[in-house]
Amino acid sequence: MLFKVEMKVNIPHDMPAEVAADIKAREKAYAQALQEQGKWRHLWRVAGSYANVSIFDVEDNAELQELISNLPLFPYMDISVAPLCRHPSSIHEDDR
Amino acid sequence: MLFKVEMKVNIPHDMPAEVAADIKAREKAYAQALQEQGKWRHLWRVAGSYANVSIFDVEDNAELQELISNLPLFPYMDISVAPLCRHPSSIHEDDR
Amino acid sequence: MLFKVEMKVNIPHDMPAEVAADIKAREKAYAQALQEQGKWRHLWRVAGSYANVSIFDVEDNAELQELISNLPLFPYMDISVAPLCRHPSSIHEDDR
Amino acid sequence: MLFKVEMKVNIPHDMPAEVAADIKAREKAYAQALQEQGKWRHLWRVAGSYANVSIFDVEDNAELQELISNLPLFPYMDISVAPLCRHPSSIHEDDR
Amino acid sequence: MLFKVEMKVNIPHDMPAEVAADIKAREKAYAQALQEQGKWRHLWRVAGSYANVSIFDVEDNAELQELISNLPLFPYMDISVAPLCRHPSSIHEDDR
Amino acid sequence: MLFKVEMKVNIPHDMPAEVAADIKAREKAYAQALQEQGKWRHLWRVAGSYANVSIFDVEDNAELQELISNLPLFPYMDISVAPLCRHPSSIHEDDR
Amino acid sequence: MLFKVEMKVNIPHDMPAEVAADIKAREKAYAQALQEQGKWRHLWRVAGSYANVSIFDVEDNAELQELISNLPLFPYMDISVAPLCRHPSSIHEDDR
Amino acid sequence: MLFKVEMKVNIPHDMPAEVAADIKAREKAYAQALQEQGKWRHLWRVAGSYANVSIFDVEDNAELQELISNLPLFPYMDISVAPLCRHPSSIHEDDR
Amino acid sequence: MLFKVEMKVNIPHDMPAEVAADIKAREKAYAQALQEQGKWRHLWRVAGSYANVSIFDVEDNAELQELISNLPLFPYMDISVAPLCRHPSSIHEDDR
Amino acid sequence: MLFKVEMKVNIPHDMPAEVAADIKAREKAYAQALQEQGKWRHLWRVAGSYANVSIFDVEDNAELQELISNLPLFPYMDISVAPLCRHPSSIHEDDR
Repeated sequence: MLFKVEMKVNIPHDMPAEVAADIKAREKAYAQALQEQGKWRHLWRVAGSYANVSIFDVEDNAELQELISNLPLFPYMDISVAPLCRHPSSIHEDDR
Repeated sequence: MLFKVEMKVNIPHDMPAEVAADIKAREKAYAQALQEQGKWRHLWRVAGSYANVSIFDVEDNAELQELISNLPLFPYMDISVAPLCRHPSSIHEDDR
Repeated sequence: MLFKVEMKVNIPHDMPAEVAADIKAREKAYAQALQEQGKWRHLWRVAGSYANVSIFDVEDNAELQELISNLPLFPYMDISVAPLCRHPSSIHEDDR
Repeated sequence: MLFKVEMKVNIPHDMPAEVAADIKAREKAYAQALQEQGKWRHLWRVAGSYANVSIFDVEDNAELQELISNLPLFPYMDISVAPLCRHPSSIHEDDR
Repeated sequence: MLFKVEMKVNIPHDMPAEVAADIKAREKAYAQALQEQGKWRHLWRVAGSYANVSIFDVEDNAELQELISNLPLFPYMDISVAPLCRHPSSIHEDDR
Repeated sequence: MLFKVEMKVNIPHDMPAEVAADIKAREKAYAQALQEQGKWRHLWRVAGSYANVSIFDVEDNAELQELISNLPLFPYMDISVAPLCRHPSSIHEDDR
Repeated sequence: MLFKVEMKVNIPHDMPAEVAADIKAREKAYAQALQEQGKWRHLWRVAGSYANVSIFDVEDNAELQELISNLPLFPYMDISVAPLCRHPSSIHEDDR
Repeated sequence: MLFKVEMKVNIPHDMPAEVAADIKAREKAYAQALQEQGKWRHLWRVAGSYANVSIFDVEDNAELQELISNLPLFPYMDISVAPLCRHPSSIHEDDR
Repeated sequence: MLFKVEMKVNIPHDMPAEVAADIKAREKAYAQALQEQGKWRHLWRVAGSYANVSIFDVEDNAELQELISNLPLFPYMDISVAPLCRHPSSIHEDDR
Repeated sequence: MLFKVEMKVNIPHDMPAEVAADIKAREKAYAQALQEQGKWRHLWRVAGSYANVSIFDVEDNAELQELISNLPLFPYMDISVAPLCRHPSSIHEDDR
């Protein structure tokens, strides 16, 4: 089941550089692990911003909550979620 | 070059049913042609709405304008566009 | 899987009264059928408005889209959807 | 008398971890006590967020204010309230 | 139990004058009847607008819905509602 | 001359508790003095919030500014003001 | 007593030209009469729009309501009002 | 050439009182100097707020930028600007 | 003197096609005449929309109002204006 | 390929003056280098603000992201981006 997830990162200006670097490194590792598992199907940067557009592929709402709330950057992001489903005009089989 | 495009359809309530049906049929044919050409990479319905989330793959801004402005439903939609590019944490080669 | 759905009804002022009455009667029958099937778990009026707050219980996003887009009042409502899941502090077993 | 209450938690980034943990523990105990008393009828997590959707069942507006303003997280939340009442199409006796 | 209710009137420009006059006359009679019953405690015009600020005094949310949804102008107004209760600094006994 | 005034309190999280307590005590004394003078005609808590709805009765705009800008909590509140006047449907003599 | 009033004109597209011309002529005559009486102290066009910024000088809120609600264009304008008073840094005697 | 300028002051809560007092004193002197030069034609307080509505009379956009960006409170204000010009219904010669 | 002007076109759905075509033809001729005179310095389509971003070069606010209010599409557009001036980091002489 | 980019600068009030001065100096040098390379085609100050309107000329979305995310002020700005393309009514060859 697919969800569009948009994340905008707002790192506090007074966060020490090494703390921020550590969080970002853990975020990257976590994001790549979820991509390898097929849970995080697409991940794009929005050009001109510190934000992304993502497509998650999860079992249900509970799994979506578990995956997102464990993002190392979760406390520092504005996140919006939209549930997706198959569009009657889609010809792509995996646009479920 | 990828763009996220979100479209929300607002058919006027006084549009005759056969006119609406004709526009929607042409919209579907056009959307499927663009998908076959690889220009309209993803097309999802937003659950609970008459709206979609799409990913377009175009040469440049001009082609994006040409494709979108020729949508049969173009005069009846609220459309928003976000330019996308590769995210440094993506592992998918086609998340350009 | 639960979703909070909020619906605000905007009947066009120039809709003939008997057309509106027919749509509302079909909406009521449809809403009651979905409640009997357990798909529409809660349905409340928002006091002072022509709007409701609802809880839907569906298999997945696709079923949510199917149920909502078939509402007779669907073309005349502003609808917003939020995916829900179990809250770690809930003590109610059916607050899934 | 029912109210829909939505709460979004915004813990300040500079709050010491043990202070936050203490507030959250007291919040959980308080929320569960109110659920046991039947005052907090439903409590759901909004998937992908640090937010909830709740249904309160209170005597009157004054009791709603008393219950909400005593939430340990009250100073750190954006809260919105909507008064609910019976919907004429509801078939559930307790959707008052 | 008190509620602040704000109403903004939007009469459609194509409503015949005599229809509008009839609705407004019935609205006035209804508003005065509710004031006489003590249900509509205060009614002020917002200067420079076709809008009012009102204080309703009702038994519960259901009565608020019944009173407001029966306003002759109800289909033509944007209405917002806020539940009120006693303020700890109030010295007026009837600011319940 | 009446004004509706809405105030939402936002105490900074890092304000020492005794400073906040002192400001609130002075706010309460000031609010009660203005009520006794008849300047602050109504004061209600908005249920579920740290906010109030008030009706001020002043000589003119300048007095409104003087009374509000001297509130001890003035630097910590979002405040909105609406000028009121008699509504043609009001039956209450003091709904001026 | 001064108020800033901002008015944005939205003439319905289907209003016959001669009706619009008549309303605008009456609006102009009314605006000039109020200026001659000193009630409408300033009237500026906002460049690039069909809107104005005005300063009204009235006895009280009731007179503001009377003057604005009698504008021939009143049903076709979005209007916002802000009460003004003397600024402590003003050196102009008539910036009351 | 006239511009309407609206300024809302947001002094940070942790600014030392003597720093704030100094900035405000310099702001007042600067505002009065510009008024004496005829550049700042009107300055009103918005009643119930720490905000003003002003009319600037400048040579061009560049001078507007120079005057506003040199305000001692400039870093602490939300500022909005609207270009004004003569209204065809104005009878005041200096409502240019 | 430069202004950024953004225009979004909203042709009413019930405007006859030949009326719309005539207005658009006159709009194009007018836009090209202003470009030839150097008044309309830049004109870009916003990709994916029926909107443009423009740079106007005018004598003053009054000329801006005259040019924009005479656009044949003026009654059918949402228009926003921002006054521009030289940026201290610009190296382009004509970025006045 | 052109993009309109709008940037609003929000320097934190507690940033040391010399840190701010260094960032601004590097921002200016970077902006001028990009202008010399032809990447940053126009740069205007919005009068009355600490903001700019810019036109970027880049190969693709990825280059836009690279240029903008390397702005020394990037962490301290609200940035919005709109893709541009040739307008059918433009007569300027370089309004691509």
